[in-house]
Amino acid sequence: MNTLRVALLGCGVVGSEIARQMVEHADDLAARVGARLELAGIAVRRLDRDRSDTGVDPTLFTTDAVELVSRDDVDAVVEVIGGIDPARSLILTAMEQGKSVVTANKALLADDGFALHAAAEKHDVDLYYEAAVAGAIPLLRPLRESLVGDHVNRVLGIVNGTTNYILDQMDTHGAGFAEALEEAQALGYAEADPTTDVEGYDAAAKAAILAGIAFHSPVTLADVHREGMSGVTASDVASAKAMGSVVKLLAICELAPEGDAVGVRVHPAMIPREHPLAGVRGAYNAVFVEAEYAGQLMFYGPGAGGAPTASAVLGDVVTVARNRLGGVTGPGGSWYAERPVRPTGETVTRYHISLDVADRPGVLAAVAAVFAEQGVSIETVRQRTEDSGDAELVVVTHQATDDALSATVRGLTDLATVRDVMSVMRVEGE
Amino acid sequence: MNTLRVALLGCGVVGSEIARQMVEHADDLAARVGARLELAGIAVRRLDRDRSDTGVDPTLFTTDAVELVSRDDVDAVVEVIGGIDPARSLILTAMEQGKSVVTANKALLADDGFALHAAAEKHDVDLYYEAAVAGAIPLLRPLRESLVGDHVNRVLGIVNGTTNYILDQMDTHGAGFAEALEEAQALGYAEADPTTDVEGYDAAAKAAILAGIAFHSPVTLADVHREGMSGVTASDVASAKAMGSVVKLLAICELAPEGDAVGVRVHPAMIPREHPLAGVRGAYNAVFVEAEYAGQLMFYGPGAGGAPTASAVLGDVVTVARNRLGGVTGPGGSWYAERPVRPTGETVTRYHISLDVADRPGVLAAVAAVFAEQGVSIETVRQRTEDSGDAELVVVTHQATDDALSATVRGLTDLATVRDVMSVMRVEGE
Repeated sequence: MNTLRVALLGCGVVGSEIARQMVEHADDLAARVGARLELAGIAVRRLDRDRSDTGVDPTLFTTDAVELVSRDDVDAVVEVIGGIDPARSLILTAMEQGKSVVTANKALLADDGFALHAAAEKHDVDLYYEAAVAGAIPLLRPLRESLVGDHVNRVLGIVNGTTNYILDQMDTHGAGFAEALEEAQALGYAEADPTTDVEGYDAAAKAAILAGIAFHSPVTLADVHREGMSGVTASDVASAKAMGSVVKLLAICELAPEGDAVGVRVHPAMIPREHPLAGVRGAYNAVFVEAEYAGQLMFYGPGAGGAPTASAVLGDVVTVARNRLGGVTGPGGSWYAERPVRPTGETVTRYHISLDVADRPGVLAAVAAVFAEQGVSIETVRQRTEDSGDAELVVVTHQATDDALSATVRGLTDLATVRDVMSVMRVEGE
Repeated sequence: MNTLRVALLGCGVVGSEIARQMVEHADDLAARVGARLELAGIAVRRLDRDRSDTGVDPTLFTTDAVELVSRDDVDAVVEVIGGIDPARSLILTAMEQGKSVVTANKALLADDGFALHAAAEKHDVDLYYEAAVAGAIPLLRPLRESLVGDHVNRVLGIVNGTTNYILDQMDTHGAGFAEALEEAQALGYAEADPTTDVEGYDAAAKAAILAGIAFHSPVTLADVHREGMSGVTASDVASAKAMGSVVKLLAICELAPEGDAVGVRVHPAMIPREHPLAGVRGAYNAVFVEAEYAGQLMFYGPGAGGAPTASAVLGDVVTVARNRLGGVTGPGGSWYAERPVRPTGETVTRYHISLDVADRPGVLAAVAAVFAEQGVSIETVRQRTEDSGDAELVVVTHQATDDALSATVRGLTDLATVRDVMSVMRVEGE
């Protein structure tokens, strides 16, 4: 039986799991690949850490990643260092040396996936990255291969477990954002500095990757309209509940109605409780796909964690190894449709707006006039009067553009009877 | 640009959709394959039917399927006739002539998938069948390719839309089986003769295919323990509701705890409402996968219908076409693990048992003694006394084998105080 040699870059939570699984299940992997997979070396930053739990021969560790990816006896390189540099240059060096690459690096792929794909094509090697979006959930391969005969219209994803955990706590226990975040941090679901998650940067990188694949068009992180969820209040969540909805941080990739442009955005949104995404609890991820012929699909599972991410990486490693044995490469990047990214202002959706208003006659008429001026049609208005004489007005609109909505909000702010526009949230999934 | 020619066998609901999609999206498909896909011919039983809605050149229709699959200028054959014969012989003839095959034929694959895979391997052609299980849901490819580096422990599937629709109606509206079936028939979700669906034959074929792929072992329809759902009563559904559960017809494929055998069964079961499968409504399908590293995954979507099934078939056609251009074949059947199928009696699960008993002292003691004799441990007992002096006893057990449970039921039947064992249902997904 042949042997294929794999270089591993990084031996943190994910890397050590990959090494462990490769050692533990070597015979099964060999039967599935048709060749034995052997670890050629593992690049780490420091050699003095105890890594005996991985079961890996200690002589395999090295601090010279560049030398490792250039070795003649390495067939494939697995990159789980993360971040832009030196990951990018190591991947490019590996490809130049004819090695196929498997990576979980969403930041790098969202930043410049085309250059990586172009390099892979130039050097006739594979580039796979199932683990980069929604962890263990088989998602990119189904989109790239299973749905390749179909036409995706829309992708709605819960692709960040931290924020889903926080929002789920807020929904279930009525907790405020700060309290729920603290709990998530205590449980290890959120980082000490949670910015990347709660401000939507992580989800935005994944949205860019998803949109590119779903619409066969070049999309980067810079194209994604991003709003975080740190501003979501207990009152927003309660208001969503009152209308039979739940607040989720969504990555939304959609084709414009004419099919000639792509919209990509990340923001908190209200979705109806009957929507399959509404039932995604805790730190789980799920991606809902609307395709022209297949209809509504959903892919659900753990979006992070060492073992799940390693599972996705190893699936790619097996594929890369099989391709190498067959002397071929898999389907590469596909951007032939070259659809441009639509300006955010042209996004069409529904909105939920909470206003703090004076409780006196004529307020509703004045508010309604502002919506009418901008051509934004109102679906429902709910008014809640408090003993203090203040009132909360909750308006849910029909479909309108982001531009029209922004103009409406500016108009509302200018009204003397409107004390505050307390929140504006999109309503999706209907 | 190259052209690859596809022969289509069958032009019913699915076949006509495939033809229509190939014509409508010819340019997109060409961009994705890297070659134009052309319909070489369509085998039908009768030529005198109007098929102008497909947009297909009428001269392409033929009644000579054998000649069509043998033509020199055909690269791939798509079989959507269904049934065992002549589908089997046409597929084998196509392979002998060097054509790759895409099929949606679950009956044939569950009957003898190994022979088909062996023929594909012998003639160095592809065999793909994503549409055979759970329609449009990308499932077989994720199991065969994305999870290939992982180890599946269990698959729980709602893989028959008809029975899910019926059970959902019973759960939502308290309808009885007969009433819900009638409604399903009126809406076109159930056939006039619903046997294949309600007695679990359709789900059993899919279970056999899933088990074979998930456990890399040869499993056929004959290996599947099958119980239909026509015996599920409104009272069973209400009882499930009372314990926070819902009744679903499940296809269950699982590895024995020691990993040395495979269990495959189809039967109605109660699952907790918090389980992701519990929320699968109407005629939708979903498959829940438990893998060693990836954890809990779910794949959700439409399990049937012309357009969704055609989407899955076309995904396979694109893959087969790409492989052909690259001069390779994809990963074939994988049965290396050769795990035997475990006898049904060794299945371990929990049970929900309803007994019609006389309402007098000592009944519970006698009933409990029968369970104890067989080593079946009771988790909860609930008694409901009626004015008539009858009582219903609902027993939920801890885990026990099917053999022990059967012996228990025989013992209960023999008790003078037990008038009837009204229902026995497995409890899964906990």
